[in-house]
Amino acid sequence: MAGDPDILDRELADPQGSAGEESRLDEDDRLKPGFVREVENALDAGDESAAYDLVEPLHPADIADLFELLERKERLALASAISDLMTADVIAELNDFVREDMIEALPAAAAAAITEQLDTDDAVQLIEDLDAEDQQAILAELDAEDRLAIETALSYPDESAGRLMQRELVAVPEHYTVGNLIDDLRSPDRNSDDFPTDFWEIFVVDHRHHPVGTCQLSWILTTPRDVAIADVMKREQTLIPVEMDQEEVALRFQKYGLISAAVVNDDGRLVGQLTVDDIVHIIAEEAGEDALLMSGAGEGDINEPLREAFSARVRWLIANLGTAVVASAIIAFFGGAIEQLVALAVLMPIVASIGGNAGTQTMAVTVRAIAMNQLTRSNTWRVLWRELKVAMMNGVVIAVLIGLAVSVIFTPPLGAVIAAAMVVNIVISGMAGVLVPVAFDRMDQDPAVASSVFVTMITDSMGFFAFLGLAVASGLVSL
Amino acid sequence: MAGDPDILDRELADPQGSAGEESRLDEDDRLKPGFVREVENALDAGDESAAYDLVEPLHPADIADLFELLERKERLALASAISDLMTADVIAELNDFVREDMIEALPAAAAAAITEQLDTDDAVQLIEDLDAEDQQAILAELDAEDRLAIETALSYPDESAGRLMQRELVAVPEHYTVGNLIDDLRSPDRNSDDFPTDFWEIFVVDHRHHPVGTCQLSWILTTPRDVAIADVMKREQTLIPVEMDQEEVALRFQKYGLISAAVVNDDGRLVGQLTVDDIVHIIAEEAGEDALLMSGAGEGDINEPLREAFSARVRWLIANLGTAVVASAIIAFFGGAIEQLVALAVLMPIVASIGGNAGTQTMAVTVRAIAMNQLTRSNTWRVLWRELKVAMMNGVVIAVLIGLAVSVIFTPPLGAVIAAAMVVNIVISGMAGVLVPVAFDRMDQDPAVASSVFVTMITDSMGFFAFLGLAVASGLVSL
Repeated sequence: MAGDPDILDRELADPQGSAGEESRLDEDDRLKPGFVREVENALDAGDESAAYDLVEPLHPADIADLFELLERKERLALASAISDLMTADVIAELNDFVREDMIEALPAAAAAAITEQLDTDDAVQLIEDLDAEDQQAILAELDAEDRLAIETALSYPDESAGRLMQRELVAVPEHYTVGNLIDDLRSPDRNSDDFPTDFWEIFVVDHRHHPVGTCQLSWILTTPRDVAIADVMKREQTLIPVEMDQEEVALRFQKYGLISAAVVNDDGRLVGQLTVDDIVHIIAEEAGEDALLMSGAGEGDINEPLREAFSARVRWLIANLGTAVVASAIIAFFGGAIEQLVALAVLMPIVASIGGNAGTQTMAVTVRAIAMNQLTRSNTWRVLWRELKVAMMNGVVIAVLIGLAVSVIFTPPLGAVIAAAMVVNIVISGMAGVLVPVAFDRMDQDPAVASSVFVTMITDSMGFFAFLGLAVASGLVSL
Repeated sequence: MAGDPDILDRELADPQGSAGEESRLDEDDRLKPGFVREVENALDAGDESAAYDLVEPLHPADIADLFELLERKERLALASAISDLMTADVIAELNDFVREDMIEALPAAAAAAITEQLDTDDAVQLIEDLDAEDQQAILAELDAEDRLAIETALSYPDESAGRLMQRELVAVPEHYTVGNLIDDLRSPDRNSDDFPTDFWEIFVVDHRHHPVGTCQLSWILTTPRDVAIADVMKREQTLIPVEMDQEEVALRFQKYGLISAAVVNDDGRLVGQLTVDDIVHIIAEEAGEDALLMSGAGEGDINEPLREAFSARVRWLIANLGTAVVASAIIAFFGGAIEQLVALAVLMPIVASIGGNAGTQTMAVTVRAIAMNQLTRSNTWRVLWRELKVAMMNGVVIAVLIGLAVSVIFTPPLGAVIAAAMVVNIVISGMAGVLVPVAFDRMDQDPAVASSVFVTMITDSMGFFAFLGLAVASGLVSL
């Protein structure tokens, strides 16, 4: 992996660069469509150097965005046109699906050349989703040390801290002073291969290489040389076990406001570090995925291959078909009543639809609270009671509105029936919206994944049952 | 605001502390219900010192979590029992609603004492949601400098960078060397009031106090004393205008992997800094809020006051009532057809429900892509076409399943009608799921907020219309 480039040689960026770049971005930091079209035109015309000149001033993150906006064929053409701009930063910023697709299209030697530039964490991300054959082809091209580092990382579970961590970090023994550390860091013979490109904290380890403390660089810089690092460091640390799932890692970073954290193996040895710039993507991904999961859209990425998007979604549509059939069976049971009064058929979807909406609201709130660790066994009953109160308030308002309208347009008895059914269904929906996700959470299942199907089934079925049942019970129609 | 505590005096944490703390947390990092109950019992018994002993070993973030898990009365009792543990870190980690409620319950002098300990950004967060009277009471208790800093921050728009930033930062002139900076930082007479408690980068400014570069602390530490900082710093910077909305700020931090960023006013002067530990909360909040917004649950926080939760949600239920009435009107139009064949009433909700589900899937994917800046004018048509293909694949599968089932249970002609209606509705739903949020985005409206209502209206109405309309068109029933 690349070490820190010699700092004195760090290229001074062109001061015009950022101004030029800005004109390619709109006020929301998105690439302007006109600019994207210019690149497309250059690529379509086969003019690689024009494409290069257009893209060269962009920030790596914007180059990555540009790839995502292009069509597949254009992506490969652009990659070939700007091969020396395809830095680690661009690769790391690419959408997972786009990256995987592009790497698969590259020859193994070219993919290995890119992999070698990357820190372990980015290198692992690059090849972990490839199939075994492609992985082996790239690994075979790497030198032994890099290969070993990546193979070790790949031996950890998918989406675990071991996959995400950087092996490169700065660790010092307990007896070190601030002066010792600064001298070490300035020394030109520090092993550049194990040296991180960016670091924000250093780790203090004992003779077994177990972390005993963490020290922010600002504490080092504000402390005289002769002070021992052990006297400045913070002993209370948030250690990350190497097998911990990335969702849990993201929550810890968020909860404790971490910038970096030591990763330890089963024996408690320091084996790597995680830095927040790698974790923010996961925090956003995990927080954002609940909306997708609840809707039944799987990974829900516009770059996801068509077949994967189809199979993720059709599964939930089929599940939903099952719940819709249950609701239909209830309507069929009341078929005779509908034949007597067709207004029932006209109005029944209103009860089901509003109940469904109320249930989805409560479910979204509950799933979010569970994800944020705000809803635990300690306050489940309080939250359920709170949602019940909100549901009753909502139920009364909606019942009055629809009850009055139906009384005027149809008849007052039908208005009374739909009003009562609405209150019943909104209250049931509110309870289902809390209890279904909580039940999944207790069973150690992700509440965002399957709650929708059950909540929808309950709100639909109960909506039809309450409305048609009350119509029969009130003597408005008979079975 | 408090400066950096003298580092040499930094208290060494009790090494048993973290072990003790861990036993209070379950494997998901949540406070164990048994522990929470112990604290509740101590508070109910009025035993403040028992409560103190229980809470004392906790990390500030866990103390904040504990407050959120308690009932309102217990929260105030706990705050009084552990007043000297109510540090800035605890306050900053508290849920907004819980914090606001608790601060309102405190006397102004006590609230001011807490405010004084905080960095500007946390202090602003503490009082920005209070009503004007409470704000004034607290501000009046502060000393002039703190008051001015907070009043300046409050003069920026709600949810802007100016509200979030810390005024405290380290800035040096262009001619400084690494040695000059280190000497300054070690100097005991640095003005502790303007000195940040944590910092990760330093800013280099010109004579007008405009930022010209940023320097990571690791670059300083790895560079000899006599090198000019201007030779190590990065000139390409991501500057944050003080009025920028927090959602945009969060996207920039995420996109460019920032640890900290300079905040500049309209004249380009450096006025503050933002650090990623304050932004991760916003990244998570903004990414997570789409699920809540799409469901129509407003802020959707379990700690939101009942009245606010009710008014946020009932508004969307009423909007949904409107769309349900439109769907009902379509059914009413086909009332005669339903009277001839009650099976239509039994089956019609299936078509609407599956269409609604398919539309929600596509909408969730589209809203997420827009939020992540992945879907822009450059690729709208490609994404629409992609979703259309997914919708057609889904439509065919679902149509075959329901068509066969209805053919067997009812009649083959009815099976053909529902199959055709299903394809039509899923395709329309897929298009609506893309076009509705894109249209809101083009009109500079948050696509997560109002898309649901429109998508639901289209999928419901079209579901009923396609199914009942095709039943009439096929001659199965007459109008």
